[in-house]
Amino acid sequence: MNFASDNTAGVAPEIMAALTRANDGFALGYGNDDWTRRVEKKFADLFKCDVAVFVVSTGTGANALALAHVTPPWGAVLCHRDAHIATDECGAPEFFGGGIKLIELPGANGKIASEILKATLENRSQWGPPHHVTPAVVSVSQATEAGTIYRLDELRSLADIAHAHGLAVHVDGARFGNALARMNAAPDEATWKAGVDVLSFGATKGGAMGAEAIVFFDPKRAEGMSARRKRGGQLHSKHRFIAAQLEAFLDGNLWLRIARHANGMADRLSDGLSKAGFAPKWPIEANEVFVALPLALCDKLQAAGAAFYRWDTEITPDGTQAVTVRLVTSFATAADEVDRFIAAVGAT
Amino acid sequence: MNFASDNTAGVAPEIMAALTRANDGFALGYGNDDWTRRVEKKFADLFKCDVAVFVVSTGTGANALALAHVTPPWGAVLCHRDAHIATDECGAPEFFGGGIKLIELPGANGKIASEILKATLENRSQWGPPHHVTPAVVSVSQATEAGTIYRLDELRSLADIAHAHGLAVHVDGARFGNALARMNAAPDEATWKAGVDVLSFGATKGGAMGAEAIVFFDPKRAEGMSARRKRGGQLHSKHRFIAAQLEAFLDGNLWLRIARHANGMADRLSDGLSKAGFAPKWPIEANEVFVALPLALCDKLQAAGAAFYRWDTEITPDGTQAVTVRLVTSFATAADEVDRFIAAVGAT
Amino acid sequence: MNFASDNTAGVAPEIMAALTRANDGFALGYGNDDWTRRVEKKFADLFKCDVAVFVVSTGTGANALALAHVTPPWGAVLCHRDAHIATDECGAPEFFGGGIKLIELPGANGKIASEILKATLENRSQWGPPHHVTPAVVSVSQATEAGTIYRLDELRSLADIAHAHGLAVHVDGARFGNALARMNAAPDEATWKAGVDVLSFGATKGGAMGAEAIVFFDPKRAEGMSARRKRGGQLHSKHRFIAAQLEAFLDGNLWLRIARHANGMADRLSDGLSKAGFAPKWPIEANEVFVALPLALCDKLQAAGAAFYRWDTEITPDGTQAVTVRLVTSFATAADEVDRFIAAVGAT
Amino acid sequence: MNFASDNTAGVAPEIMAALTRANDGFALGYGNDDWTRRVEKKFADLFKCDVAVFVVSTGTGANALALAHVTPPWGAVLCHRDAHIATDECGAPEFFGGGIKLIELPGANGKIASEILKATLENRSQWGPPHHVTPAVVSVSQATEAGTIYRLDELRSLADIAHAHGLAVHVDGARFGNALARMNAAPDEATWKAGVDVLSFGATKGGAMGAEAIVFFDPKRAEGMSARRKRGGQLHSKHRFIAAQLEAFLDGNLWLRIARHANGMADRLSDGLSKAGFAPKWPIEANEVFVALPLALCDKLQAAGAAFYRWDTEITPDGTQAVTVRLVTSFATAADEVDRFIAAVGAT
Repeated sequence: MNFASDNTAGVAPEIMAALTRANDGFALGYGNDDWTRRVEKKFADLFKCDVAVFVVSTGTGANALALAHVTPPWGAVLCHRDAHIATDECGAPEFFGGGIKLIELPGANGKIASEILKATLENRSQWGPPHHVTPAVVSVSQATEAGTIYRLDELRSLADIAHAHGLAVHVDGARFGNALARMNAAPDEATWKAGVDVLSFGATKGGAMGAEAIVFFDPKRAEGMSARRKRGGQLHSKHRFIAAQLEAFLDGNLWLRIARHANGMADRLSDGLSKAGFAPKWPIEANEVFVALPLALCDKLQAAGAAFYRWDTEITPDGTQAVTVRLVTSFATAADEVDRFIAAVGAT
Repeated sequence: MNFASDNTAGVAPEIMAALTRANDGFALGYGNDDWTRRVEKKFADLFKCDVAVFVVSTGTGANALALAHVTPPWGAVLCHRDAHIATDECGAPEFFGGGIKLIELPGANGKIASEILKATLENRSQWGPPHHVTPAVVSVSQATEAGTIYRLDELRSLADIAHAHGLAVHVDGARFGNALARMNAAPDEATWKAGVDVLSFGATKGGAMGAEAIVFFDPKRAEGMSARRKRGGQLHSKHRFIAAQLEAFLDGNLWLRIARHANGMADRLSDGLSKAGFAPKWPIEANEVFVALPLALCDKLQAAGAAFYRWDTEITPDGTQAVTVRLVTSFATAADEVDRFIAAVGAT
Repeated sequence: MNFASDNTAGVAPEIMAALTRANDGFALGYGNDDWTRRVEKKFADLFKCDVAVFVVSTGTGANALALAHVTPPWGAVLCHRDAHIATDECGAPEFFGGGIKLIELPGANGKIASEILKATLENRSQWGPPHHVTPAVVSVSQATEAGTIYRLDELRSLADIAHAHGLAVHVDGARFGNALARMNAAPDEATWKAGVDVLSFGATKGGAMGAEAIVFFDPKRAEGMSARRKRGGQLHSKHRFIAAQLEAFLDGNLWLRIARHANGMADRLSDGLSKAGFAPKWPIEANEVFVALPLALCDKLQAAGAAFYRWDTEITPDGTQAVTVRLVTSFATAADEVDRFIAAVGAT
Repeated sequence: MNFASDNTAGVAPEIMAALTRANDGFALGYGNDDWTRRVEKKFADLFKCDVAVFVVSTGTGANALALAHVTPPWGAVLCHRDAHIATDECGAPEFFGGGIKLIELPGANGKIASEILKATLENRSQWGPPHHVTPAVVSVSQATEAGTIYRLDELRSLADIAHAHGLAVHVDGARFGNALARMNAAPDEATWKAGVDVLSFGATKGGAMGAEAIVFFDPKRAEGMSARRKRGGQLHSKHRFIAAQLEAFLDGNLWLRIARHANGMADRLSDGLSKAGFAPKWPIEANEVFVALPLALCDKLQAAGAAFYRWDTEITPDGTQAVTVRLVTSFATAADEVDRFIAAVGAT
């Protein structure tokens, strides 16, 4: 019953098999290999447009490199105040960007609302040289840290505002597959057609060993990125092994199949919890469930072998302690694990 | 006949097997796993001292993070002018170090000579605040880019000079195993006992998929490194898979067995070439052979399927063109490939 | 009737005279001159302790260099959300600090309250490696951007909390004299004895041409600062002319006399405005008055030649527009200018 | 007899007078003043083209900001190995540029020769992503650190090579007036018509208190510079006082008159020394004389009150020690001082 994170799971069997297959013979390093060529082609096909793709091994690397590339040092990145880039990357975007500033916006359900973005950008006294930083990018997480997603019209609305003010749109897609699977949206509709300029396409949380892709939907925007990636320590010498992971991830839409499975397991968790009287705090739209449980129940579940993170603790109106826990599912989550967990919840 | 680089080889079978074994069940991310604990222990045992170990996925990441951590922004890194950090990392140390300066030193056989280091550091008008940068680290490559190695007394001599001037000693050990195997030196003797303060311990070129370790021989020096690695994009979420590579690499001294094999293949190449009248340019001490071949021979060998890089071209005294080629061996180099290559050389 | 800013005034006559006197003969550059020696001595006397003093020419330079020096790149600076470093320096602290993060705290009257600081620092899930930045400094503005000041017990309380959590305390003292003059506090009592570790001591707004001093109350903390200042572009070659400004500013407590005059003019403005029915928004504790005026009055005053900035516009309950204006006084503000301004306010 | 540096002189009387005049009444800060407008116009007239001008207070600030603005972080600045930016700015260009690399070129008389620049740029294996930095700028010092100058054809030849390889051309003009005065060249001919893209126009060494201007000859290249200057700590609040220095410096060609005087004093020194048997090491083309003197003579001259720097010490063929000293002249150097110095040399 491991719901600690989607990165506590290992590697999906299809991806592990691809790694084994890739380990055959010699191949030039640093991306000059057939796996990389094929994966670039796959991304172009997936998004139905010319793309510039840069493969890296960590999500923080992908986000920080992508943001640094579309933000001048005096630029600002506008993001939700719970965004991973703002809270969990130890200042990586600031470092890679030469001291850029992240502007944290409030917003329900982990999402930036278009009114908030609009009002923020229109408050002109706050922005612009020489005294103030200049907004350069809006970064949205798809799915968000709250396990919610931006519907296409929401995304388009944010992108329209951003573009009207000259900003680029970045998507932190560590769980991009989960969002897409939920919406049944086409990859092109959910990205450049909705106004996305650059995407951190995540595979690691989806089942890869360590593989992410920075995707620029306008290849001209990527000028210089090859150098930036290398000096950022993210050009891998045995590059084929990262490309092979992504190739397998995209192949036959494995990424979406995994995402659908994980999302389904989150739904199952949510349903069971709701029936047991514990409704999730936010809509379940990806593979994360946030729910407040009594402290004693929490302890009992963990004692019974369930793994999950305690996000927050509050005192409920009746004076007892409630713990908001986060439950995350992945390709490796089995239905019977979920059922055992729900049974354990119900038993108390 | 692939001698292009040791990173054109794939993953050593023992390491691939370890990755498959590691893919069993759940494990916490970001280094809070058993593989990481075990590999830290293994490094402490290997070097017979307390060490602080930080696992990353690229050699450039390892070097840049290590150097940035022991150099203030106004500090200088003294290195050989052919050092990888100076020529092949696209300014990664400068970026990670907040604008540090690399001072390139000349030196025969790819090595910094102690007299040169001494004279450089003693030329005090060149150094010190407020106008000049302050030497902070000497970085030596072991083995060097020329395929040569620093003998223990050479290393100690450099380290003594460095320490006498208040500098730290860094080793870029992308091919550290090759150097150690050649010298039959104990890991502790070849590092902290010889004055090394921090080591980029390479496994990727040695047969891993993508795994390097930054090893601090004084753990106090590593304070803050955990944050630096994360914001440098080099903290991997499924950390166990990098740790597992290193564990297998160290296990039963696989790293040294591989290094001995690769070194032996380089010797075999060198012997064959010498007999054919083409003596290598520098002593063969690791797994690289640099040799000048007539242009026509070069073309013929590559046409016959041999893969290698052309390093340099010169006009020989008799007016023909000679190409200095670099031949690199690895765990994957077979003796009969070497023999076929030598035969092809001899046939011309 | 120029109340636009204290930097719209010129140079105080005593300081101009000192510059003329300093322009006599030759003096070594870069701080190796008698003016610099004397000014260092003056600061030590003023604060009754050993200090390390670094003279620069802009307040942004002083703040950014000071903060960068006491914050590791993965550190955070906690400050009020209206602090100059957060809103008006175009990301200079982030740039000089290698990508540090500013954490903006709310607080009445432009001041960080100790409860807010305490609660923020105690929310441990937000802080610490590897995922989160580490709080390194609390920066308070004395006087604040709202023209208010921290009383000594308030300052001590913030400093105690900061120190208990291992943070340093920085004071942005662009208007330090105004705060001290108001409190009639001794410089030592208002700085290191209250827990301040490093001070940006401002003279420019106080009447200098362009001179600020970074003062470390523990000289050991200043190690490396000489290099940082130079590579930050803030080591002036004809250094005596910046030192001479500061010498004159400190001499005979000119800085406090000027501050008292400017504060008095602010009081006079405030009194007059209050009598005319326009009470300032915050207590008048330094040389700034923020007051909401009807839009029409605002226009009339500016048409009559009064210079000031419009800070904010709101709709009042009765449906008319009110403009919050900022009025700043300086050594150059004459009582009769104030009186003419008040008369113009009353006449409408 | 002060020949230590041109920054040991004070402020030229015309500039001091301008500062006093500028201290009349109020003026908006941060460059929104008449002095700044006028000085911008003066630069446009001087160079007979549209220019974007950014006024700063230090030469290091000017150089570092200018170079950072025309170099991406993965770019390289090619300069002479004795260039001030390479040896005397404590890594400021590397810091401001986010870790750019300075490539130091050899060259006689302190000058980059066009063959060396050409050969360096044509050695393509050294350059380009992903592994290598990309040459972005050639920076030449006019006059050089050796007191020599680039003639217009030399400059044009370097610029043609630079432009052919896509590089920009920067001039460190800390002593630009001295160079121009010697050549009797028109400012436009010596800059953009010769291929210069951005100039650090120095006034401080020429007689200002602390004033330099970054001049972009294509204003479009300056986009973003306003923010870069502010966050670099180089936007001065009482900006009129820096602009006023430059206005006076340019007014009636004061800068060239001063330069001619200083150059003439250097010639006078050189002639006298040559007659006394001590020929300068390099041609005297600006306001610096480098000459080897016997150690004993050196000591005697300094004991007699002459101030100068000892640059280098060597053992002459006859076994005695010779010291290369640097003698610098300025607006404040009087002919009789020179004559007394020469007499003192002759007397020994």
